[in-house]
Amino acid sequence: MRRVFGGVEGGGTKFKLLIGTDPHDIVAQAQIPTTTPDETLERVIAFFRRPDIELAAVGCASFGPIDLDTRSPTYGCITTTPKPGWAYTNVVRTLGSELGVPVAWETDTAGAALGEYTWGAGRHIEVLVYVTVGTGIGGAVLINGRPVHGLLHAEMGHVLVPVADGDTFAGICPYHGQCLEGMASGPALRARTGRPGETIAPDDPIWDLEAAYLGAGLHQIGYVLSPQKIIVGGGVPQTPHLLEKIRRQVTSLNHGYLAHPALSGGIRDYIVPPGLGADAGVIGALELARQSLQSHADQVRP
Amino acid sequence: MRRVFGGVEGGGTKFKLLIGTDPHDIVAQAQIPTTTPDETLERVIAFFRRPDIELAAVGCASFGPIDLDTRSPTYGCITTTPKPGWAYTNVVRTLGSELGVPVAWETDTAGAALGEYTWGAGRHIEVLVYVTVGTGIGGAVLINGRPVHGLLHAEMGHVLVPVADGDTFAGICPYHGQCLEGMASGPALRARTGRPGETIAPDDPIWDLEAAYLGAGLHQIGYVLSPQKIIVGGGVPQTPHLLEKIRRQVTSLNHGYLAHPALSGGIRDYIVPPGLGADAGVIGALELARQSLQSHADQVRP
Repeated sequence: MRRVFGGVEGGGTKFKLLIGTDPHDIVAQAQIPTTTPDETLERVIAFFRRPDIELAAVGCASFGPIDLDTRSPTYGCITTTPKPGWAYTNVVRTLGSELGVPVAWETDTAGAALGEYTWGAGRHIEVLVYVTVGTGIGGAVLINGRPVHGLLHAEMGHVLVPVADGDTFAGICPYHGQCLEGMASGPALRARTGRPGETIAPDDPIWDLEAAYLGAGLHQIGYVLSPQKIIVGGGVPQTPHLLEKIRRQVTSLNHGYLAHPALSGGIRDYIVPPGLGADAGVIGALELARQSLQSHADQVRP
Repeated sequence: MRRVFGGVEGGGTKFKLLIGTDPHDIVAQAQIPTTTPDETLERVIAFFRRPDIELAAVGCASFGPIDLDTRSPTYGCITTTPKPGWAYTNVVRTLGSELGVPVAWETDTAGAALGEYTWGAGRHIEVLVYVTVGTGIGGAVLINGRPVHGLLHAEMGHVLVPVADGDTFAGICPYHGQCLEGMASGPALRARTGRPGETIAPDDPIWDLEAAYLGAGLHQIGYVLSPQKIIVGGGVPQTPHLLEKIRRQVTSLNHGYLAHPALSGGIRDYIVPPGLGADAGVIGALELARQSLQSHADQVRP
């Protein structure tokens, strides 16, 4: 019987599921809609209960905010989400008790970052940032392949960005108004133009404004943390030429201050698309599962 | 003969020197003006050449920008500084060959952060940020007591901050104009008011503006990295009540989004003054020296 890992990427609209050991060894995969917690988690559990595999551990990379503090009574929960029924759903406890295996737990962006670090565009990068721009804007920091949690987890999608001259858009973030997510997420783009981003022509001038904000956000992240690479995932950056415009903005905002090739001629290797595309999160969840066994082994080693 | 460490904090106007093993065991200390590289480093070397000690290693926390990449031909150098004579001075090679001991090398802010982590306000803090506000604004990130270098080193003093309504000050940063350092460093305060910060009354309204910018800077750092503590050193934050105003600004900019006590009632433990005061850097350099021997031992261990 094959010894394999389970990967779960829990999203607000769908859950992606994977059984395997790495992106080149996938036993099964599926996608289910996110409905009620009970129904959704039951379908997750049913997917992993197969007679032909020995499930060693499950990794779960989840939408948030989530509780990552292993000492907290609500560890393993999605916390203050407005999504009906999901607030304080304990995903880790439910999956762990039903499947009888260790369950590793991370944010969706940290899962994607881990996938990219292990098999994608972030291999061997000591200080790696993964940013996703879609329904929201989020990000994760990996140092030598380990997610940095700190106080809670990074909220780099909500950094402040200077409002462009003449831009009167008030921003849609209910907390911060004109923060990066408020000005440049998918829903912000839609609120600004009246239509979804994927229907806006790639040569529409709105993309210059979008790149100005996203570039300012990456500039902030770069200056605070000095990452060696920033991977930009999510739906919005798939717009043709947008990533190139973002790179130009980051170079321009540096004004030659940081004298490193990554900020000038080497910027195409500094700000990059994900190597694993939209599957980085669920693939990273496999690695999460593998690491959880490793840390368990480290702990029990005498 | 006592086996001790040497600590050097290299600043643009003065060098601080220390011999000892920790802040409670100081054999000797001195302060010398920063003149030419030759003269200054000769005096540093003379200070450490004493018959009554066995010097095991020297740690040097230096003004920058500095080259921290051990694979680089200019590792150990201060690089593009406008300070006459100092550009591409190889501090590590000079001290190492003259003193015949290992020389550890870090930025001045990373040295201060390390001092605070080891003996000051940052003990046991997994994700720690140290920010200094004085002639410039700089910062360092420690993860489990190890400085994060990434691409070069953090340049968090140059993050973008929203310009306050009605503020027409153009900022003094020669690269970015109105970045945090351009708007809120000591020289910015002086350019704005025509007098040095220490002569401005603590109840002058300029301090509200100063706190608005510094708070915005710490807010950005907090959101990108999610540190568990931010230590604020340097001369400017010693102004009475300024740190409290900065804390209020950080709480206000969060708008209740990050639901953690550190951002509300617990903010006095989140944004704190240095425990070692102005000596954090040179004390941290002692620990740098100690760690360099440890990493050397790790490397040579079979």
